[in-house]
Amino acid sequence: MSVGRELKDIGEFGLIDRIAARTGAGAGVVIGIGDDAAAFQAPSGRINLVTTDMLVEGVHFDLSFCDPFSLGRKAMAVNLSDLAAMGGEPRHFLLSLAVPSATTLDFLDECMRGMLQRAEEFGVTLIGGDTCSSPDRLVISITLLGDQFPERIVRRRGARPGDRVCVTGTVGDSAVGLVLLKNGKGDEPIVRRHLDPTPRVREGKALADARLASAMIDLSDGLLADLGHILDQSSVGARIHLDALPLSVGFRENATVASPQSLSPALAGGEDYELLFTVHPKDMPDVFRLMEQMGTPVTEIGAITDERKLSVIGSDGEEIPFGKMGYDHFS
Amino acid sequence: MSVGRELKDIGEFGLIDRIAARTGAGAGVVIGIGDDAAAFQAPSGRINLVTTDMLVEGVHFDLSFCDPFSLGRKAMAVNLSDLAAMGGEPRHFLLSLAVPSATTLDFLDECMRGMLQRAEEFGVTLIGGDTCSSPDRLVISITLLGDQFPERIVRRRGARPGDRVCVTGTVGDSAVGLVLLKNGKGDEPIVRRHLDPTPRVREGKALADARLASAMIDLSDGLLADLGHILDQSSVGARIHLDALPLSVGFRENATVASPQSLSPALAGGEDYELLFTVHPKDMPDVFRLMEQMGTPVTEIGAITDERKLSVIGSDGEEIPFGKMGYDHFS
Repeated sequence: MSVGRELKDIGEFGLIDRIAARTGAGAGVVIGIGDDAAAFQAPSGRINLVTTDMLVEGVHFDLSFCDPFSLGRKAMAVNLSDLAAMGGEPRHFLLSLAVPSATTLDFLDECMRGMLQRAEEFGVTLIGGDTCSSPDRLVISITLLGDQFPERIVRRRGARPGDRVCVTGTVGDSAVGLVLLKNGKGDEPIVRRHLDPTPRVREGKALADARLASAMIDLSDGLLADLGHILDQSSVGARIHLDALPLSVGFRENATVASPQSLSPALAGGEDYELLFTVHPKDMPDVFRLMEQMGTPVTEIGAITDERKLSVIGSDGEEIPFGKMGYDHFS
Repeated sequence: MSVGRELKDIGEFGLIDRIAARTGAGAGVVIGIGDDAAAFQAPSGRINLVTTDMLVEGVHFDLSFCDPFSLGRKAMAVNLSDLAAMGGEPRHFLLSLAVPSATTLDFLDECMRGMLQRAEEFGVTLIGGDTCSSPDRLVISITLLGDQFPERIVRRRGARPGDRVCVTGTVGDSAVGLVLLKNGKGDEPIVRRHLDPTPRVREGKALADARLASAMIDLSDGLLADLGHILDQSSVGARIHLDALPLSVGFRENATVASPQSLSPALAGGEDYELLFTVHPKDMPDVFRLMEQMGTPVTEIGAITDERKLSVIGSDGEEIPFGKMGYDHFS
């Protein structure tokens, strides 16, 4: 019905109405879209969690590579992933959009459809936001709210020497997928790992509820960089075994396309949105059992040390010098 | 110390550290900056309020007109104003910044100093956010959290026929100030009303605590447009008396510069960030008394009607046809 119509045809309030019409009421929402602020309440005994992520066209996404539906799903997923890394239960979100006026309504509808689909998968409701025009680039800023019992929240700072370092799923796929996408190989399955990552919300919450993770983070900046955040905040070090890294078939087939040093996307590539967490050795059997119940692969890749240093160990047992520790947005 | 240094010299994590170093702990903050999400808790019996506003360079601000310190203050103020309009107590905020890499550290420091100064005035603490690069324009997105007892929250939808329509301060100053600014008259005092608006946080909370306002909104889109939101959501109409509009000396001296139809900035000009609220007639003396105690001017400008129509009445008692109902960002 909206063929060829653009945002400028319906205006800011039209856009808000259009978005509001697609959202329902969520548990704990006292006031939703349409007032100066939204109101919400955490279930008794729980405290609120909040995280925010901004995606800027030309920095985080390129509209010549990504379809609007996947973009909407990913914008939601990256926020869900942050809440997952705390072991929280996601509940509500606010959406701010800065939209170039020539953006088509079809594009916006598809983007919203993807975002709301991802949100619904995890029981998350849109409760507010802001819309405005943008001179040139699309900007999507999401603030995600959730909650958890305070004693179950998993922070970055809880890793202790001897804890095992674990990661869900496989690593490096997103970085390899992005290179394939840029090389015109968008049909490779691994590309979906970049365009439409799966936030590990259920896994994060299950680990938190079972009190199995001593520290946790999601992989957004790259394995070494994100592990570095845990180490910094926990005042510890780690030894990671290169041979232990969980790599997908797609990664093994394509990693050399992305980098001559074929493991560097697994160590430094960002945006996998897997969970990286540390576990007391006695809890490892419970972790494997829990993840098996959920159908989620989990791999032990190393251990926490008291020496404040991050070492990557090769198959010969020797430490590998490794420079690039992740992707810095400003570098 | 940072003369000539640019954001690209310190990188994303450097920027986060720089911002985090200036923030303290706030009441109710369980986890602040530095984890995947922040955690906070409302005082017992209260529910959470949340609002978000995004400012885009070239849309909401022009760096050739506004200094970074005022920009930071305003970015905070527009969010505080939204929370004020609910009668809430602001507590914490998240800041997302998309920053062109050539931005100087001096600029960012000044912007953060203004933002944090405004936040501190109202006891608000930075608890998280996101930073990234921007190819060209600065984008500032703030999410403000607060709370209030649920029965005291003031919504847009509570206006009833017979209620009086009141507004704090004066109207139209920001729109006139902006025109003066664009005409190179940045020294006129009224220009500050555009660059550095005062959020009516204390007034909004006092009205809510005393249960004196039946509906409330802050003036961001313009008097008629914002009153229109109250009327829509309350399913009522209003009659506004043009002669009753509170106008500043600066407005009277300069409004014709802004518009040949000299009252149109008062009716349709946005960004005054005053509070517009409705009051049962029996409560009007209490409203005047409360605002007098606070030293804040308040003016009765009309009344709510059961006819679903917004009328502006001139000094001759006749209705004035008035087309422009406010500024739509996409129009």
